[in-house]
Amino acid sequence: MNAPIPTHVLPTFERRPVPAVMLAALKKRFGDRCSTAMAVREQHGRDESPFEVPPPEVVVFCECTQDVAEVVTLAAEHAVPVIPFGVGSSLEGHLLAVQGGVSIDLGRMARIVSVQPEDLTVTVQAGVTREQLNREIRDTGLFFPIDPGANATLGGMSATRASGTNAVRYGTMRENVLALTVVTASGEVIHTGTRAKKSSAGYDLTRLFVGSEGTLGVMTEITLRLYPQPEAVMAAVCSFPSIEAAVKTTIQVIQMGVPIARCELLDTNAVRAVNKHDKLTLREGPMLLMEFHGTPASVKEQVATVEDIAREQGGMAFEWASTPEERTRLWTARHHAYFAGMQMRPGCRTVTTDTCVPISHLAECLLATVAEVEASGLPYYIVGHVGDGNFHVAYLIDPTIPQERETAEQLNLQLVQRALSLDGTCTGEHGIGLHKQGFLVDETGEGAVEMMRTVKRALDPKNIMNPGKIFSM
Amino acid sequence: MNAPIPTHVLPTFERRPVPAVMLAALKKRFGDRCSTAMAVREQHGRDESPFEVPPPEVVVFCECTQDVAEVVTLAAEHAVPVIPFGVGSSLEGHLLAVQGGVSIDLGRMARIVSVQPEDLTVTVQAGVTREQLNREIRDTGLFFPIDPGANATLGGMSATRASGTNAVRYGTMRENVLALTVVTASGEVIHTGTRAKKSSAGYDLTRLFVGSEGTLGVMTEITLRLYPQPEAVMAAVCSFPSIEAAVKTTIQVIQMGVPIARCELLDTNAVRAVNKHDKLTLREGPMLLMEFHGTPASVKEQVATVEDIAREQGGMAFEWASTPEERTRLWTARHHAYFAGMQMRPGCRTVTTDTCVPISHLAECLLATVAEVEASGLPYYIVGHVGDGNFHVAYLIDPTIPQERETAEQLNLQLVQRALSLDGTCTGEHGIGLHKQGFLVDETGEGAVEMMRTVKRALDPKNIMNPGKIFSM
Repeated sequence: MNAPIPTHVLPTFERRPVPAVMLAALKKRFGDRCSTAMAVREQHGRDESPFEVPPPEVVVFCECTQDVAEVVTLAAEHAVPVIPFGVGSSLEGHLLAVQGGVSIDLGRMARIVSVQPEDLTVTVQAGVTREQLNREIRDTGLFFPIDPGANATLGGMSATRASGTNAVRYGTMRENVLALTVVTASGEVIHTGTRAKKSSAGYDLTRLFVGSEGTLGVMTEITLRLYPQPEAVMAAVCSFPSIEAAVKTTIQVIQMGVPIARCELLDTNAVRAVNKHDKLTLREGPMLLMEFHGTPASVKEQVATVEDIAREQGGMAFEWASTPEERTRLWTARHHAYFAGMQMRPGCRTVTTDTCVPISHLAECLLATVAEVEASGLPYYIVGHVGDGNFHVAYLIDPTIPQERETAEQLNLQLVQRALSLDGTCTGEHGIGLHKQGFLVDETGEGAVEMMRTVKRALDPKNIMNPGKIFSM
Repeated sequence: MNAPIPTHVLPTFERRPVPAVMLAALKKRFGDRCSTAMAVREQHGRDESPFEVPPPEVVVFCECTQDVAEVVTLAAEHAVPVIPFGVGSSLEGHLLAVQGGVSIDLGRMARIVSVQPEDLTVTVQAGVTREQLNREIRDTGLFFPIDPGANATLGGMSATRASGTNAVRYGTMRENVLALTVVTASGEVIHTGTRAKKSSAGYDLTRLFVGSEGTLGVMTEITLRLYPQPEAVMAAVCSFPSIEAAVKTTIQVIQMGVPIARCELLDTNAVRAVNKHDKLTLREGPMLLMEFHGTPASVKEQVATVEDIAREQGGMAFEWASTPEERTRLWTARHHAYFAGMQMRPGCRTVTTDTCVPISHLAECLLATVAEVEASGLPYYIVGHVGDGNFHVAYLIDPTIPQERETAEQLNLQLVQRALSLDGTCTGEHGIGLHKQGFLVDETGEGAVEMMRTVKRALDPKNIMNPGKIFSM
């Protein structure tokens, strides 16, 4: 096992300065859309990860693909790093300017380029957020299901191959990105894919970029699959006597092929945090928060099946949220878990794990982890997209106590080792970033990582695209 | 528009001889599993494409990943091409030894390595065929849905990113391959991915190989997603007054989000051929052949919705095939369409198109094509996975009349131009192979194809992995 990079000790990266001539060219071209103000740089130099590194030297606010192409062309000429920036919700240090360089802010590229309701497709600029997308297409009767919790940009979600609560039914960004417009490392603009639902036309460049964490190019436009808003939606919470009972219920639901739309676990700590933060009165025990989509008859049938399974595992009666308002309240609470958890220990920082295992190993992986974490005495809570075998342990650590960080890292190492031994992955949806580079080698082997490096070297020979992420070169 | 390579004029490829020292090493290592007999070479030097080129110099029958690694290591040392071979059902010349070299026969790698029914996953050797897989896992209550018609190997299906009749509901090989064991161009063995349902661990090497047509490495083991056998299955045929009515029905079914499992179009010519070949009495008009999967209640509901839509489009009453035997008869007939079609014109060869367009453009694309083909006077039939916007025009050409080939190529060119102008793809599921290299450039642009070439050069610097396919180097 390779040790992870501990959160508090980053490797030393050589910073690559932005030459004055390049800075002048950027200022001339972009005017006040090019900023070196410290406040702007600092805002673009951090994300939700626990790392602290100096900010990028300059931030450029791009408004179209051509803007991005011009920044990258200049960066390529001067061998300066570029880091695409959306809303800064990465948990793994993707946005940190470890080698300095230019932060390309895509937040102003927030236009729905075109929507084709009759094809269930939409093309967006990379800076559109998922909530904005769903708001703007609501009248079409369609929706985009991928929901990582944070109101991330579609660009950021594509770059980390995000998923979240709806993935158990609708898949991840891997399954739902149809085509991309990409600015390559030389500043060229290419298009990957068409709006056809399937294609065998050459290498799957779309999926090479999805999950590449900004290291191969900048995605500027994204064509996505949409889905008809379900005729009927029901959400329910069910409380269980133990985590094991909740997980066993999940496993059976998946194995029976019930097309459940969301199947989320909250442990007792998470329920307690959410109750407090959102003024709810959920029973403080392990809980599944579920959602069912379909026709009224199909939803009724799914619910009956899941209720039967849950009852056998000692699940309490379902509590229903059938109106849109109640559902929104429940899911908002779930999405607040991250902030609710932090309020349980004022001043803490959150260190989050992201393992994902085959569903049959979920109980083993989760229960052994709970035992270890309980024994450690660290404050924590667990939430999980358990229908996919993915869960997050969030450790609430006091940043002034180094020992707590080290304990959290040690627990994470043990969890990843366990997940890999159970044929799982070290990251279900957050990405490798800075933190999991050792785990990536443990998971796929040096040969596969060297193949990734070979692709990177070929497509980005000057190593300017978000350097230092996924692997060192 | 780049012209396609006409079927009757292949570009000249330089053949790269197998040195005597390498041949001796292969014979020493593999004994009678290494064959230079002309009959064996010829069998491995053709597929279902209309091309004729000299066969490979030698065929090696591999039985495990290590065998493949040793062949490739030798080939790399001597810069000799290797071509993976399954059952030879490619339609696009993938298996042709245009530069000579070694055919690696994977047919003896036909073992189910492991099945995990509780995780809905299976790992197979690349030479397992889809029918064999479904036979061997039947008792688990699970099945593998991807069904391209031919009883292809899972290796071949992965290499071409195959799909077929069930893709409208279950996706293609892109969505259903979880992980691969691959022999790289240097003879190294790597693993891409785990059995976790989702992962954000680095570049998506799995999907880089799926659809790479043997040009980046040899896939030797494949981990696939399985699905619970549906509780209820119903199949029906519905005859329509026109192709337009059948297609409009399909479009509405998809747009309403009905989870139809199969939605196949047969034009009048195809129905006639199938009736004759399989002694059926289907009404000789445009027909949709559909299948519904789910719980009994859900299937009933799907059927009611589709019947309503079909009736509005003038569809005749559904004819049901609800027993497994009747269903098998119907789908066997569909799968025989290729051979049934050829019997309509004894001695003919089939030239098949493979465009796929966004569903809203399907009627326009298909109707304009029918008008052109009718005007040409060439014998043809049409079958289509219309739920995905994918259809095949099969021209039945007399190989002794060069003009017929040229007409077919001209019609194909017009069809591809139309599909691309409608934001579709030149190939939904057959791959690029030898035939569509010009179309690939038209579809994705020179920049994207050059990116593919860059990846190829980086991962296969000696250009030994199935050279000459997808693009020229």
